[in-house]
Amino acid sequence: MEVTVAIDCMGGDHGAHVTVSAALDYLARDPQTSFILVGKPKALEDELGRTHAPTGARLKVRPATEIVTMDEPPALALRAKKDSSMRVAIDLVKSGEANACVSAGNTGALMAISRFVLKTLPGIDRPAIASILPTLKGHTYVLDLGANVDCSAEHLLQFGIMASELVASVEHKDRPSVGLLNVGEEDIKGNEVVKRAAELLRASGLNFYGNVEGDDIYQGTTDIVVCDGFVGNVALKTSEGLAQLLSTYLREEFKRSVFTRLAGLVALPVINAFKRRIDHRRYNGATLLGLRGIVIKSHGSADVFAFGFAIERAVEEARSGVLAHITERMSSIEKSAA
Amino acid sequence: MEVTVAIDCMGGDHGAHVTVSAALDYLARDPQTSFILVGKPKALEDELGRTHAPTGARLKVRPATEIVTMDEPPALALRAKKDSSMRVAIDLVKSGEANACVSAGNTGALMAISRFVLKTLPGIDRPAIASILPTLKGHTYVLDLGANVDCSAEHLLQFGIMASELVASVEHKDRPSVGLLNVGEEDIKGNEVVKRAAELLRASGLNFYGNVEGDDIYQGTTDIVVCDGFVGNVALKTSEGLAQLLSTYLREEFKRSVFTRLAGLVALPVINAFKRRIDHRRYNGATLLGLRGIVIKSHGSADVFAFGFAIERAVEEARSGVLAHITERMSSIEKSAA
Repeated sequence: MEVTVAIDCMGGDHGAHVTVSAALDYLARDPQTSFILVGKPKALEDELGRTHAPTGARLKVRPATEIVTMDEPPALALRAKKDSSMRVAIDLVKSGEANACVSAGNTGALMAISRFVLKTLPGIDRPAIASILPTLKGHTYVLDLGANVDCSAEHLLQFGIMASELVASVEHKDRPSVGLLNVGEEDIKGNEVVKRAAELLRASGLNFYGNVEGDDIYQGTTDIVVCDGFVGNVALKTSEGLAQLLSTYLREEFKRSVFTRLAGLVALPVINAFKRRIDHRRYNGATLLGLRGIVIKSHGSADVFAFGFAIERAVEEARSGVLAHITERMSSIEKSAA
Repeated sequence: MEVTVAIDCMGGDHGAHVTVSAALDYLARDPQTSFILVGKPKALEDELGRTHAPTGARLKVRPATEIVTMDEPPALALRAKKDSSMRVAIDLVKSGEANACVSAGNTGALMAISRFVLKTLPGIDRPAIASILPTLKGHTYVLDLGANVDCSAEHLLQFGIMASELVASVEHKDRPSVGLLNVGEEDIKGNEVVKRAAELLRASGLNFYGNVEGDDIYQGTTDIVVCDGFVGNVALKTSEGLAQLLSTYLREEFKRSVFTRLAGLVALPVINAFKRRIDHRRYNGATLLGLRGIVIKSHGSADVFAFGFAIERAVEEARSGVLAHITERMSSIEKSAA
């Protein structure tokens, strides 16, 4: 299926230098895609000139005069910057010119503008941020990773429904299993919201596994882990911190003496294979799930390699028909409740 | 200072085999300690006979006829097992015969029985579970790790006060810094409870750093990280899961071929030094903080080496006078508020 992706070329720590290169790379890899690069004309021209990439039917440029900065309050970005590269990219999804958009910009602003422009899908109160994490068995989808710091049981149920349709659509996995993040496996564990969410999920017709704990995320106990955005964000950031600590310790041990440095040289190919395997860049690209349009958030620090994975996610989701599937599911739930 | 520690010898996955050996080891290391071993007489006699350890003034045995099992509901353990090794060990702290107790048993039961028998310190509504985690700079105290799945802003403030006194007393660190776990550094981030807790902490006279994020735990940004028990438990368990994933991946990469196995042999001393450094057994021993008595929870799976660290924590806290310091601080806060 032909897919057109709008790229917010000015977002992220590296701006057009990374985003344009990643789009051009992807364009060369997948002949069924086209791109609309959104950003300041000068910046885009510089990048396109440097790479001698000709614009045309598969590669268009759309000017935007403003940039949402990384620390800008979302409400301000929404109100005051109507011609930002972020806003214009989202507008292209709204108008149907693009099937999806990707931005490495300010997460809060991206969520606020996306909600305002695209609105949520029928029956969905709030979008959630969903991302993939590596596990002992493959990978797991975790949501919400920070969009909603206060969730009701109904919100958690909606996250479970949306993620089930996402995994079914993108991974072609029938009835993916859903775990509810809690502080113990027993039904009596957790706060009131989580206990009520477990009841709703159990009655939902989803493939609900039950409660899972933090370690189940990386064990890959379920295909999906549902949690509120506060807890999800802390779990994700804590993981980043621990990974950094362990890699610093490992590096220090290999640098301790002449002998350990030699051992490090011998072990280098193994250490590099290990690093490739846990390379977080391969998991770049979080889905703003629940909107009437596909919006993918790249990590702000993404390089060309990492940004390419965010683009790939956008293309896969656009091809999967996930939004129609969520809409159908919500409508069938509404009918059976009526 | 002379310290007497009561050991719940029947708790944990390995029972008396681990707990008695660890107590005897500690006794040999620190002549200023004595132990009261609590448990089924037969089990204790077997262990003491096996090791030919003579009882006496520094090593006493206190019989208990029951055992709290690992999956027993805390309320049931509290009501129905008044002669459990756990209960008797806590009773010894209450009566003053012991300065502290250590148990590797059921966490929920240990907390419920400790609260019932010892009560909380004046001005403290709820005890919290505090533990040490390794960081890039040394280590950080994190609480609550799971005792309270719903916390008010006032509870979070109390956790900050208690932990400040704990770190000041045990680590001789004046005015340790306190971070509040949140989803962003800015004041506007987080849910209502966390925002209000930040206001209370800022006005408390503690050395309040402000909001910290999940990765700050392992970066060692602050001496103390305060959070509610739901979030803290998820952060801790997620860390355990990630550490397990990474060590599995590393092992797999070293086992991939004859070459990588050889590289693994060469790198073995380095890998072992790395493993020693991140050995979670060195961080065994969580404090049930806020009680009128010192109660230390060991991991259920602790071996003799790990259980020794939990005993060490009990001895250090008993010597530090932390309970008197928390009481003084709470009383001075009450006076200044009056």
